[in-house]
Amino acid sequence: MRKVTQQHTKEHNRNLTLKTVFAHESVSRAEISRITKLTRSTVSDIVASLVAEGLVVEVGVGSSRGGKSPILLSLVADARHVIGLDLAHDRFSGAVLNLRGKIRQRVDLPAEGVGGDAALRLVYKVLDKLVRSANRPLLGIGVGTPGLVDTRGGVVVNAVNLSWQNLPLRQLLQDRYDLPVAVINDSQAAAIGEHTFGEGYTPESSLVVINVRNGIGAGIIINGQVFHGVGGGAGEIGHIVVVREGGLPCRCGHTGCLETVASTRAVVERARMMARHVPGSVLAESPDTIGLDSLQRAFANGDPLARQVVLEAGRFLGLAVSVIVATLSIRRILIAGEMTRFGPALLDSVKEGLAQTLFPRLIDETRVEFDRLGHDEIILGASALLLNDYSLLFKGQPAHVKRAS
Amino acid sequence: MRKVTQQHTKEHNRNLTLKTVFAHESVSRAEISRITKLTRSTVSDIVASLVAEGLVVEVGVGSSRGGKSPILLSLVADARHVIGLDLAHDRFSGAVLNLRGKIRQRVDLPAEGVGGDAALRLVYKVLDKLVRSANRPLLGIGVGTPGLVDTRGGVVVNAVNLSWQNLPLRQLLQDRYDLPVAVINDSQAAAIGEHTFGEGYTPESSLVVINVRNGIGAGIIINGQVFHGVGGGAGEIGHIVVVREGGLPCRCGHTGCLETVASTRAVVERARMMARHVPGSVLAESPDTIGLDSLQRAFANGDPLARQVVLEAGRFLGLAVSVIVATLSIRRILIAGEMTRFGPALLDSVKEGLAQTLFPRLIDETRVEFDRLGHDEIILGASALLLNDYSLLFKGQPAHVKRAS
Repeated sequence: MRKVTQQHTKEHNRNLTLKTVFAHESVSRAEISRITKLTRSTVSDIVASLVAEGLVVEVGVGSSRGGKSPILLSLVADARHVIGLDLAHDRFSGAVLNLRGKIRQRVDLPAEGVGGDAALRLVYKVLDKLVRSANRPLLGIGVGTPGLVDTRGGVVVNAVNLSWQNLPLRQLLQDRYDLPVAVINDSQAAAIGEHTFGEGYTPESSLVVINVRNGIGAGIIINGQVFHGVGGGAGEIGHIVVVREGGLPCRCGHTGCLETVASTRAVVERARMMARHVPGSVLAESPDTIGLDSLQRAFANGDPLARQVVLEAGRFLGLAVSVIVATLSIRRILIAGEMTRFGPALLDSVKEGLAQTLFPRLIDETRVEFDRLGHDEIILGASALLLNDYSLLFKGQPAHVKRAS
Repeated sequence: MRKVTQQHTKEHNRNLTLKTVFAHESVSRAEISRITKLTRSTVSDIVASLVAEGLVVEVGVGSSRGGKSPILLSLVADARHVIGLDLAHDRFSGAVLNLRGKIRQRVDLPAEGVGGDAALRLVYKVLDKLVRSANRPLLGIGVGTPGLVDTRGGVVVNAVNLSWQNLPLRQLLQDRYDLPVAVINDSQAAAIGEHTFGEGYTPESSLVVINVRNGIGAGIIINGQVFHGVGGGAGEIGHIVVVREGGLPCRCGHTGCLETVASTRAVVERARMMARHVPGSVLAESPDTIGLDSLQRAFANGDPLARQVVLEAGRFLGLAVSVIVATLSIRRILIAGEMTRFGPALLDSVKEGLAQTLFPRLIDETRVEFDRLGHDEIILGASALLLNDYSLLFKGQPAHVKRAS
């Protein structure tokens, strides 16, 4: 609880109006008044200033319920732009997006094996290109990165693949570009992207995105808010021990973690290992060259080894889903990342693993599906951190982000 | 976001003041003003009405920082009372408590094997006694029950041990006693009790209480709020599958659930089973009569079978803790319920299981301990649901709970 002041009330009402405009394709002043419970004259004043600032425009006339036909208002989607970044392990991708999440410019640079200062310079390179290309006022920069992130502090605490420890990424980027910056874990960004731009969610929806790449992480949205946990480490499901005896060693130091059986790296390594010892698969011809692409081709052709390895990974993902559902009671789980390439058969194996382990009462109520937005959802989610901070829309180019988390 | 009205502001400021008084042993008007950022005159007006209502009293004079010594205010702990209930599987316990959670009256009735209507009649019996014994205005009744609870709706959706399905317990109790009623899952009540009355928490603390009885459930507090999940089912960790192959059947229909290896029921059954087949333990003399008490005695005397069975359960609880920490990134986990009777050696086995499975970086940051409040924490937590609703303090005996969750 905090004290309520007049200034707070004014800002609150302005954000409330803008939120309503954001939430509709088009909307009249009367509807805004009805939805926000603000008076007609308050809404008119706020709308007048939003139009003056170029954020809102009158787009036509709606149907009347008797009386004068209402004038419809709409967000000017390209009034401001925002930058989103996805620092994946083999490729840094960035984009300039408008207020509706539509991508206007895009930059992709290979990042395989890049770490430390070189990785940071590569981030600058992507951003330099994007900032230069922008032809609208920029709200700021949102970055989705693998690893443990302190979003409040804007610090990448630990990103093993990028060799970053306690990197004050927000400060570095703010200093360089003089723009608000938000930094968030990539799985959390994926979840925000899905929630903000995906279909079928309300502002209060709860969902989990399980992001399967080289590592496995979960982004958790609880009642419309990202759940960070203490110190930003929520969703570290890749290191849940799922093979209690005889598991493979994990990079974390234990054995039998989910990552050792269900990540893309694990699937490829397992296929290589089994191809050597279990001939009879097309993959046995050249085990050392097995990669995700060749595995996918073999899988599509019904190769028994490929199917065995991939579907076993899927069943383990199903076990992970059941742990999340049992712990959080969130009934909508999306699988995202590189494993989705294996399609419906993989999804079926996830559901199979789920059915074998989830409290039966919950099985029918739980929806497991692939994410909708695909590769762009981390870019979209990272940029949404800026879009959701309505106060940024009213500033020129403020020196810092007031509310990044 | 919702519209801010004058009435809302007034109520907000009154609750803010009362919250500050609750949070301090004693506090001056000036300190309240500093903490709440309300003006001195607003605070004085609010305090005057709280004193008139008997909720706050002047208790003495504090030290001065120059100028007049301030008059200290304190909550009148017995100005109102509240009832808390714990519907454990073998015993229904209830108490009348004051505003500081101090128990003033207590009623315990055996409930072994009681279910359905008989269980409901037993609840009435406990409450009839407590309501009759109350000699202060009652704020309401808080009930902690095993099973899945829809706290918002006040409905026990499913409590297997009590044979309750979709029981509208809040409505039934409100109609019978004409008091506000809140119903919550017992593990969640335990977590609220610990957070409200335990030592070392702030209003924004996050913690998890793992409640081990016949079943196993977790109460999750995230940033000071109970996390219910969708449909109230968060914390169903008893049915996480921890033995993937060759596990024992669980009452849920699967095999290898946490409850089959780490609940009190599982420990007793395992000891009985192993005593038959593994002679050499004092417990082998009469396997069928092994219960928690005899197991505890044998454990204390270093009986190898008792130690094996109990410590193995502890290691599985450690695995469950690691799943919770990895998923939620909550670093403070309390073990509560019947297994705590096995003392420090059990706690060590939980930590051992945790160290074997938790992401190493997190091990040092994670605190696992027994709960502080013991058997009363469910009663305390259930009653805290009413205590935390400050608006109830200003009403005579309102017809319903406005904000139970």
